[in-house]
Amino acid sequence: MNPTRIIIDTDPGVDDALTFLLALASPEIQLEALTTVCGNIGIDKTTRNALSVLELAHASHIPVARGCADPMLNKLGNSGDAVHGTSGIGKSNLPEPKAQPIEQHAIDYLIERILAEPQQISLYTIGPMTNLALAIRKDPRIVPALKEVVIMGGSLRAGGNITPQAEFNIHADPHAAHVVFHSGIPITLIPLDATYKCLLTSADIERLNKIKSPIARFVGDATAIYMDFYKKYEGFDGCALHDPLTLAVIIAPELFTFEDHYIDVDISTGVSMGNTFADFMKVTKKPANIKVALNVRGRDFVELFLERMETLSRSIAD
Amino acid sequence: MNPTRIIIDTDPGVDDALTFLLALASPEIQLEALTTVCGNIGIDKTTRNALSVLELAHASHIPVARGCADPMLNKLGNSGDAVHGTSGIGKSNLPEPKAQPIEQHAIDYLIERILAEPQQISLYTIGPMTNLALAIRKDPRIVPALKEVVIMGGSLRAGGNITPQAEFNIHADPHAAHVVFHSGIPITLIPLDATYKCLLTSADIERLNKIKSPIARFVGDATAIYMDFYKKYEGFDGCALHDPLTLAVIIAPELFTFEDHYIDVDISTGVSMGNTFADFMKVTKKPANIKVALNVRGRDFVELFLERMETLSRSIAD
Amino acid sequence: MNPTRIIIDTDPGVDDALTFLLALASPEIQLEALTTVCGNIGIDKTTRNALSVLELAHASHIPVARGCADPMLNKLGNSGDAVHGTSGIGKSNLPEPKAQPIEQHAIDYLIERILAEPQQISLYTIGPMTNLALAIRKDPRIVPALKEVVIMGGSLRAGGNITPQAEFNIHADPHAAHVVFHSGIPITLIPLDATYKCLLTSADIERLNKIKSPIARFVGDATAIYMDFYKKYEGFDGCALHDPLTLAVIIAPELFTFEDHYIDVDISTGVSMGNTFADFMKVTKKPANIKVALNVRGRDFVELFLERMETLSRSIAD
Amino acid sequence: MNPTRIIIDTDPGVDDALTFLLALASPEIQLEALTTVCGNIGIDKTTRNALSVLELAHASHIPVARGCADPMLNKLGNSGDAVHGTSGIGKSNLPEPKAQPIEQHAIDYLIERILAEPQQISLYTIGPMTNLALAIRKDPRIVPALKEVVIMGGSLRAGGNITPQAEFNIHADPHAAHVVFHSGIPITLIPLDATYKCLLTSADIERLNKIKSPIARFVGDATAIYMDFYKKYEGFDGCALHDPLTLAVIIAPELFTFEDHYIDVDISTGVSMGNTFADFMKVTKKPANIKVALNVRGRDFVELFLERMETLSRSIAD
Repeated sequence: MNPTRIIIDTDPGVDDALTFLLALASPEIQLEALTTVCGNIGIDKTTRNALSVLELAHASHIPVARGCADPMLNKLGNSGDAVHGTSGIGKSNLPEPKAQPIEQHAIDYLIERILAEPQQISLYTIGPMTNLALAIRKDPRIVPALKEVVIMGGSLRAGGNITPQAEFNIHADPHAAHVVFHSGIPITLIPLDATYKCLLTSADIERLNKIKSPIARFVGDATAIYMDFYKKYEGFDGCALHDPLTLAVIIAPELFTFEDHYIDVDISTGVSMGNTFADFMKVTKKPANIKVALNVRGRDFVELFLERMETLSRSIAD
Repeated sequence: MNPTRIIIDTDPGVDDALTFLLALASPEIQLEALTTVCGNIGIDKTTRNALSVLELAHASHIPVARGCADPMLNKLGNSGDAVHGTSGIGKSNLPEPKAQPIEQHAIDYLIERILAEPQQISLYTIGPMTNLALAIRKDPRIVPALKEVVIMGGSLRAGGNITPQAEFNIHADPHAAHVVFHSGIPITLIPLDATYKCLLTSADIERLNKIKSPIARFVGDATAIYMDFYKKYEGFDGCALHDPLTLAVIIAPELFTFEDHYIDVDISTGVSMGNTFADFMKVTKKPANIKVALNVRGRDFVELFLERMETLSRSIAD
Repeated sequence: MNPTRIIIDTDPGVDDALTFLLALASPEIQLEALTTVCGNIGIDKTTRNALSVLELAHASHIPVARGCADPMLNKLGNSGDAVHGTSGIGKSNLPEPKAQPIEQHAIDYLIERILAEPQQISLYTIGPMTNLALAIRKDPRIVPALKEVVIMGGSLRAGGNITPQAEFNIHADPHAAHVVFHSGIPITLIPLDATYKCLLTSADIERLNKIKSPIARFVGDATAIYMDFYKKYEGFDGCALHDPLTLAVIIAPELFTFEDHYIDVDISTGVSMGNTFADFMKVTKKPANIKVALNVRGRDFVELFLERMETLSRSIAD
Repeated sequence: MNPTRIIIDTDPGVDDALTFLLALASPEIQLEALTTVCGNIGIDKTTRNALSVLELAHASHIPVARGCADPMLNKLGNSGDAVHGTSGIGKSNLPEPKAQPIEQHAIDYLIERILAEPQQISLYTIGPMTNLALAIRKDPRIVPALKEVVIMGGSLRAGGNITPQAEFNIHADPHAAHVVFHSGIPITLIPLDATYKCLLTSADIERLNKIKSPIARFVGDATAIYMDFYKKYEGFDGCALHDPLTLAVIIAPELFTFEDHYIDVDISTGVSMGNTFADFMKVTKKPANIKVALNVRGRDFVELFLERMETLSRSIAD
């Protein structure tokens, strides 16, 4: 079977970086490009981080297209610094990347690629969805041409991680999420309900660090601040593999419990801004617009993640 | 141990009526009064129904105080007719009650009783909370004097039953819920997450109807439309004992899984109107204001309910 | 012609106090009672101020009914201290009143009086409308029985004085305004568009103080802080006679330019909270629900006010 | 003095078409391009209309760049058909245009032109501001490079013409207006407060039609439905020259009464959606962000408009 061809739209970000590595480590996946967006940190840093992580993984040939510096409406208010560190990638010392982003804006890159090969490309958004939303508005012809979008975002039953109701990625650009949710593009949603089941522990990091490799060291360094944060604020030893879990849709879909629901995002300007909610009891009679992972065999995914990281680490040893 | 003294604030309504019967059948409870409110149906009908059910149960000595005819702000939009029947009590033919409601308005009755015996009375609200909210605004001295309020209302993880996010009682007067949630009165919340676990089935009704008694017949007749509704819209044979479950806080608290959370209700005028939400991940750092039943051993409660109804039926046999 | 019988619902407040004096000085008006509410300052102070001003004017026989301590929903956020002084009545040293408020709550007093004499009483609300809104909700029979309500509140074209869109009285309890506006009671609205045309100047105060009288001294002392505020923040020498202007509906209606419009108040929880707006271009096709004073011959009213204060001052000389 | 170089962003629309003609008839203005957007009607028709009107005026050399087919968030709900006719240009029979829109999307055309000649181009938006808002989000470098934007939109004191508070252009994409208002670009706003003073009457049309010219005929035909609408719904003989009035900022600025204010647009999802409001009383202390025309010598502008149309008509006679 041919590998699934994906573009990752991303605001790296610790777990964004781990997602690139998992994609590169997975033969089931062909990573076509990264498109960057502001989110965890500003667009300059997310773009640099994207390039740096690709370089670390000997994958500088993969194009990086720089995207939007601001969300559709709100100015970037909630900093991810406490979670991801000032650089956006924890304590890791990523080298200055040698490669440059491509000339084309992420919006135009997405439009061109999607229209050039209809139904061939899947988009994985693991940050705010500003780029995709603006691409839809600039050229609506991408809607029927995009194969599907897999989104790390939202929280249906688990509660929010930035407000009581809202998850970070959706909250950072709720209007973009609203455009995407109502676009008609086939959507698979990986919300906090699933991602918080996938906890990478310090024991896992130790295991990985038995391999001497820049990859293994990076995973350890990158997750260090992230783990500190979880220990301090959420009281457990480990960090959630939010973004990497999206790729399990390709490499281990059997781990998920999926349901189809009508799901919307609240963009009224009150306490519910950015809340994603499902019509679980079907009171609206609206047809399902999103396939959502309400559960996952979390430890199984973490094991799979570790195996792939070990393989990648061995292939790029010191 | 002395029985717990309660007032039930109610908009009968099928499961409201079952709640009165359960209270009367339970030696752990001393039912002091009913206060009525608009909700499932208008105030005239809910008041008449309250009187009728008391008469049926030979409990006309219990005072009924008529309360508010409208919610704090919204006009009553969502009719409960499809669920509760036009009369509000299914197909049951309740007799015209002989008793009258007391002269005093429910608001004044609540204020007088609560202030007269501070910390002695628990209020059980199983309809919209208009009466309590207006009582708090009219005389805030009831806040420290009321022992606690136990609320059937809201939905935290289960989704809403009137909009995707809102449960009927809260949605019918979200502003009243807002006043109560922020009042400082100790609150126990029994949301849909728990009540939908307590399903009375047609087999249960058959069992009950082996006793020839107006009570048993009433339970069967009253739940008939209700069960039809559940069968048609929710696809199962049975109906949820939403309101009666509140009384398990007194008679079988061990059945619940309680958690303490900061819980609020959305009163912005959008898709989230009436949504109750908890700060599960403690992102606001606000202290818990509500003890909430997130789970219950539902079948155990239904068995308990049936036993009590059997006892009551035998005591008021044909 | 018989004098118009009015109850004033009030949160005194400097210009509230001036309104009582104007009512007492006007043979066209029979002041039946004052009902107090929180607003400019808390309910204890507004009630005491109401009693004190009546005492000052030798009118302690007029009953004062204490009302609500909080608005329908929002906690009192915006203090009027900077405008009205800590006591609520500027620098004036009002004596401790000898009279007490009546036993009855303002809500119940309003209901009783209005039902006792249908179509005989006009209510003048010059503070937040919490008392009236809760009275309507407690006993909707007052709606057809109340002759009319004249409201100092809102701003249609002039902009708000507490937010860009909202006027203080409406903003202090927008939900109460919403209940009243949609009640069906005949409403005359006196918004900032009219009241800001009625400026009492320091020259006016000097003229009044030529009469040696506690009344004249009180008007001067009471308006002193108020004038300081206007000088500092709004750049003119004088203060607006917001509340007293309502009484011109009785004593000099010819001064106003009235229009009938469909007017509503925004109670969504955003930047427009408490905004009163008219459908000037009739896009909704909704019938007019409010008669609104969009203009007034302001100086003519101030002259009338001064004449009445002079007469009252002479009647209660040192 | 060199003519002012402008791009008009437009959704023609009757008065949009008149605006192009006025620009072409005015030596003070150099019309560089038209960019089209959905609004009064869909993007296909607005683009065709733009090309047709240029052809009619022998100005097909002016480039037309096709823009966004949808507003930033909301689907186009309010049709302008009743006002502008099904074609968007009244009863006029515009010929199929021979010219085509340029290849470039309006967003990209705006970005390229503005960045190529910083501070040289003024943008006149006479429809929803979707194109400009998305251009700002795609490439924020245009913010300091754009000389100014002159906007036909909003209503401060006059009330809305699509909802009680909102004017059509702003309401059609309030989020775009929010982005532009908060961008930092120098803004001049021409709201309904000014435009409704500029009424073209049927007598004016008669005067113009004394010249036998396709231009004069077009003005008469185009405004016919428009005038019918005004007669039917607003009760006067004439139609407002909303969009053309923006050009008076260049050709007759002395006609306006301008004020500088802090102005915002409400994007909460309630009754105030799309309301533009000014902080007239400066309660927020925020600095003015917009220069707004609160009044205009309307008849003087209409005379000027007629003179220019007469000149243009003579230059393109039958």
